[in-house]
Amino acid sequence: MPRHFHEELDALKQTLLAMGGLVEDQIRRVMRALIERDGDLAQEVIDRDRQVNSYDVEIDEKCVELLALNQPAAGDLRFITTAMKIVTDLERIGDQAVNIAQRAIELNREPQLKPYVDLPRMAEKAQRMVKESLDAFVSRDTELARRVCGEDADVDALKEQIFRELLTFMMEDPKTIPRAIRLILVSRFLERTADHATNIAEMVIYMVESKMVRHMLA
Amino acid sequence: MPRHFHEELDALKQTLLAMGGLVEDQIRRVMRALIERDGDLAQEVIDRDRQVNSYDVEIDEKCVELLALNQPAAGDLRFITTAMKIVTDLERIGDQAVNIAQRAIELNREPQLKPYVDLPRMAEKAQRMVKESLDAFVSRDTELARRVCGEDADVDALKEQIFRELLTFMMEDPKTIPRAIRLILVSRFLERTADHATNIAEMVIYMVESKMVRHMLA
Repeated sequence: MPRHFHEELDALKQTLLAMGGLVEDQIRRVMRALIERDGDLAQEVIDRDRQVNSYDVEIDEKCVELLALNQPAAGDLRFITTAMKIVTDLERIGDQAVNIAQRAIELNREPQLKPYVDLPRMAEKAQRMVKESLDAFVSRDTELARRVCGEDADVDALKEQIFRELLTFMMEDPKTIPRAIRLILVSRFLERTADHATNIAEMVIYMVESKMVRHMLA
Repeated sequence: MPRHFHEELDALKQTLLAMGGLVEDQIRRVMRALIERDGDLAQEVIDRDRQVNSYDVEIDEKCVELLALNQPAAGDLRFITTAMKIVTDLERIGDQAVNIAQRAIELNREPQLKPYVDLPRMAEKAQRMVKESLDAFVSRDTELARRVCGEDADVDALKEQIFRELLTFMMEDPKTIPRAIRLILVSRFLERTADHATNIAEMVIYMVESKMVRHMLA
């Protein structure tokens, strides 16, 4: 039943995009929680991680079922096994949103150290990379995937800039250290989010070109 | 050709264990490089990451081939798809060793801040978790896998202890901040190593019991 199979594949793509949308929204919300010092919103992000995890299970099950009940040809086979890996990256991006939410709640216990300028920019970039990497996957678009890989350097540069700035705060006034470290950690969680998006993009290139780009770009 | 298929599966297990051994050795070496302030050894760890990446490609290819050329039954199918996910975690543990190596090289530019006591303990625990999680996978041993999940709390406790201690250093003498932050990052990389081992262990329980333990334990 090849037609049925391709309908199932399409449904899989849709579910994966829905999971991606949820995860992007988690990043968007957690950054709002951080910037607006909204502890309730941060807690909501933590609670909503369960939905991210349900998607992980649902997609994983669906992929195994598709493999078990059909004998997908090489291209579809690789698409399904790639989907299984991508879902793990998405789930871990969700974990980064939870990590940021926990730091946001801790940061609320003290006055704000400084206005956040680079962190929101970093989050925006990371979020766009997540979206683009998934778009690249469902449309097997290696050009877009390569662009995502290129964007990772911008995120790393922002991370370094944030680090240097916070280091200055800490050196000048040791009282700022606990807050500065939490903000450094937030920047690291955003970096990891961008890394996961890059992993997804590299897997897309690999899937389409079946060349080993993943480690050559690293 | 079911017999041939099971020989292939056994070979896959062996390759996965070899990759695991290499990754464990990378952690062992990078910690020696850190403690003995051996920049050459740290550089070797960075260079050897290529071998880790080759294993990643090799095992991934082998899994896709096994899926394409056979119609594995449900149990074997899940074993192979789990192997594909595990290999990604192993590859990322290798990345953590590289991250630590880079911090070790940076730390060598300044005098040592303090003798390292908890970091080696943390590394030992993380390393054992990696080994046990893979042993649990190849022998489908859920009891061992559950033990690995339990050990993650010890690693987190050590991470918190290291953080508190280094915070004291930084508060007392701001000149120690750059070094202390590098050491905090090393502890985070070890924590991520343990997290990857926990991910592997959770996937093993899921594979064997096909119940969703992964997110209930989290």
